[in-house]
Amino acid sequence: MLEMDDQMKQDIELKFDKAGGLLPVIAQDHATGEVLMLAYMNHQAWQKTLETGKAHYWSRSRNKLWLKGESSGHVQVVKEIRVDCDLDTVLLKVEQLGGAACHKGYRSCFFRRVDGQGLTVDGEQVFDPKEVYGQ
Amino acid sequence: MLEMDDQMKQDIELKFDKAGGLLPVIAQDHATGEVLMLAYMNHQAWQKTLETGKAHYWSRSRNKLWLKGESSGHVQVVKEIRVDCDLDTVLLKVEQLGGAACHKGYRSCFFRRVDGQGLTVDGEQVFDPKEVYGQ
Repeated sequence: MLEMDDQMKQDIELKFDKAGGLLPVIAQDHATGEVLMLAYMNHQAWQKTLETGKAHYWSRSRNKLWLKGESSGHVQVVKEIRVDCDLDTVLLKVEQLGGAACHKGYRSCFFRRVDGQGLTVDGEQVFDPKEVYGQ
Repeated sequence: MLEMDDQMKQDIELKFDKAGGLLPVIAQDHATGEVLMLAYMNHQAWQKTLETGKAHYWSRSRNKLWLKGESSGHVQVVKEIRVDCDLDTVLLKVEQLGGAACHKGYRSCFFRRVDGQGLTVDGEQVFDPKEVYGQ
């Protein structure tokens, strides 16, 4: 996807150190603009994402490198990478394979809206988590 | 904007504690879907946002509550609030007054794309920061 030599990769000095090694990454559907999820990358996840064109994150709960979709098959194919003014947040525009980013089976992790009732689920559920991940 | 009584506000138990008191917040243009910025909220910023309908954040550099646009006038009017599956990230859909979220004068803080050249500026600059903030 992104043709980039080693020097180019080094030139983009994201501020991992300032943020304790992890930067927040927003994944957005490249076609619809829907915000799908927020996750974190360390330097290794960033490099793997650049190398493979598939979104890799650092799982804070499992404390390991995580190819998004490695269990579910719902890989995120990276179409565009953007960085913010402070070089401490990444925005990935992705094609979400399987149609759902959330481990609860919704298209987006932001499947709940805050309103006068508290939280209202209005996101679209694409799969049943039990069928994909088991019990 | 959001009609919510005190009980409702308490019922939405965002996980500030788990995240050291600060949660990441994505601000997205409610009309175009463009991701404008990522900032952080503590509990006070969350409450002020709910109460006023204007995005408030916690400034990590200045270590204070921050009404977005307090210097520039570029306030974010909150149209919708969403929370993620883990209750540790907030998505605000906003009307960005002044047309620019970034302190560098761009519509979005993500005004640079990663490509074979390294970083390429392709965002739209709406104002000159020197005119808005002075030198």
